[in-house]
Amino acid sequence: MKNKIAILGSGAMGTACATVLANNNHDIIIYGIDLKELSDLEKGCNTKYFSDQIKIPSFTTTTDLSAAIKDVDYILFAIPTKFLPSVFELVINKLEKKVIIINVAKGFWPESNISVHEKMDSLTKLNKNVKGIVSLIGPSFALDIVNRNITLVDAVSYDLELANDIQNLFSNDYFRVYSQTDVKGAEAGAIFKNIIAIASGMLDALGYSTNTQIALLTRSIVEMKEFTKFIGGNIETNNGLTGLGDLMLTALSDKSRNYTYGKNFFNKDFDANKLTIEGLKSIEVVYNQYIKNKTLDLPIIESIYKIIYLKNDPNEIIKTLMKRPLKTE
Amino acid sequence: MKNKIAILGSGAMGTACATVLANNNHDIIIYGIDLKELSDLEKGCNTKYFSDQIKIPSFTTTTDLSAAIKDVDYILFAIPTKFLPSVFELVINKLEKKVIIINVAKGFWPESNISVHEKMDSLTKLNKNVKGIVSLIGPSFALDIVNRNITLVDAVSYDLELANDIQNLFSNDYFRVYSQTDVKGAEAGAIFKNIIAIASGMLDALGYSTNTQIALLTRSIVEMKEFTKFIGGNIETNNGLTGLGDLMLTALSDKSRNYTYGKNFFNKDFDANKLTIEGLKSIEVVYNQYIKNKTLDLPIIESIYKIIYLKNDPNEIIKTLMKRPLKTE
Repeated sequence: MKNKIAILGSGAMGTACATVLANNNHDIIIYGIDLKELSDLEKGCNTKYFSDQIKIPSFTTTTDLSAAIKDVDYILFAIPTKFLPSVFELVINKLEKKVIIINVAKGFWPESNISVHEKMDSLTKLNKNVKGIVSLIGPSFALDIVNRNITLVDAVSYDLELANDIQNLFSNDYFRVYSQTDVKGAEAGAIFKNIIAIASGMLDALGYSTNTQIALLTRSIVEMKEFTKFIGGNIETNNGLTGLGDLMLTALSDKSRNYTYGKNFFNKDFDANKLTIEGLKSIEVVYNQYIKNKTLDLPIIESIYKIIYLKNDPNEIIKTLMKRPLKTE
Repeated sequence: MKNKIAILGSGAMGTACATVLANNNHDIIIYGIDLKELSDLEKGCNTKYFSDQIKIPSFTTTTDLSAAIKDVDYILFAIPTKFLPSVFELVINKLEKKVIIINVAKGFWPESNISVHEKMDSLTKLNKNVKGIVSLIGPSFALDIVNRNITLVDAVSYDLELANDIQNLFSNDYFRVYSQTDVKGAEAGAIFKNIIAIASGMLDALGYSTNTQIALLTRSIVEMKEFTKFIGGNIETNNGLTGLGDLMLTALSDKSRNYTYGKNFFNKDFDANKLTIEGLKSIEVVYNQYIKNKTLDLPIIESIYKIIYLKNDPNEIIKTLMKRPLKTE
């Protein structure tokens, strides 16, 4: 069945999702604010994010939000998180027919301690034109999707039927979607992977090698599960695509922004756009809400917080971690 | 306490273990058959495996097996698996006092379907001079250990007291050992990681990128757990250092022999020394013992077998895997 789908956001992930859905013969319109990106997309490329060798379908685009969402069955949010509160409110108030909202943003809603998915859920609970929220979460670099590399992700929603709907909408011979109803577990994975990616990048900068990065990842999954359990998620979810899958992708590759931030953290001249480093916000929330008041004992996360926010010496921090009592795994 | 320890094998892992134990002030003797390696080790290097910039302690070495194991408290086996049956038998028959045997070989004992650890256990059950077997398993490239990069592994034994003993023997400020009594679970991880490393290398050769390799790893852990459960191990073990930890290390890096084998598999001129590719033996045993007769349904492992041994077209195999019914994760 051909569906009409609005993609909000003309960046890397918006483009990647649009190509998958266009490959599946849906009718796509892309909303954006960057005229160069939109003009590229009309011509079948997006050279700000992908080399001009990479051919994608040609898309209809618009800078008019109302026009973008008119008559659509699905609205996919792929805009920077900081713009979500205003754009999301505009959109849900303009709806004239029932839609499913697809979210690809992870981590926390701006100025809050609530995940993007749960905030979207709560803002639309009583909106008769929103069938529900489904998040796409899993190990997926946009570039690899655009290149039609095989990619596996979860469609995450409290409502299995909606998750299955999005699973069918996206799945094809290179993009395989699993349905998942454990929103809290999936969100916990998304929050942790960005924090750990920063730490993994730091280890890289400090001269540590593969053994050490893998040790960090493996032990941090133990803390991800502590957190998941506490917020009411299922730790089995952490063993899958949204947990260790996305963690491996994000925390072992300098294709990831959070990793790159960590890699450059000790370089005095480095000037990051901190707003796009989701892990920074994530670690602040996790520390302030769960660690500072001793609700949870998460020694790795606590250590990363101390390096980033209290400027503790990373080598001293690592020495302290290694001196913890020996134990069974 | 200073202990006397014989390291059998002067290769990369033997050298790496020797450096850790020498750092911990134990009294080490290294047995080997390669005079160049032994002469290097006497001078504080091992240039066949590590650059001559890398300084290690100077070791006492010998080509005399009986001299090596005389009066020692621990014997660490780090020789190629194919030599294990003969050397192991010689050693256990020559023992004059009680020792703990440490094993770093993974996978199957030659000409058998039994893991190295379990075979060593059964061969020494009634030997009054063997206190027991402990395997060191976990994400650890020898080079990184020699460079004193932080490394975390498990000391695996049915006997927790022995595992704790080895944990204390090895642990220091850069090498941290966890004790683990689930031998079967740890062995399952070691068997799977080499198979998946071959497949991950193949994906690399076929032009697939990170998304696809991570998808392979994440889904293959599901099959690792099916296998672990069936052979009587604990699937929780697969979530740790010997499971996904070692899998990440081995299957995402061309520092791994099995990965490199997969990467070169489709290159007609490639001539590997197949005896050192543990994953080849592992996949044969797993296929013949558990998949062929439909005992277990392990679609990824079955697919890898078909590519390696039945010369099936990998792209067709991948297409078939992607066409499996959509499901929850």
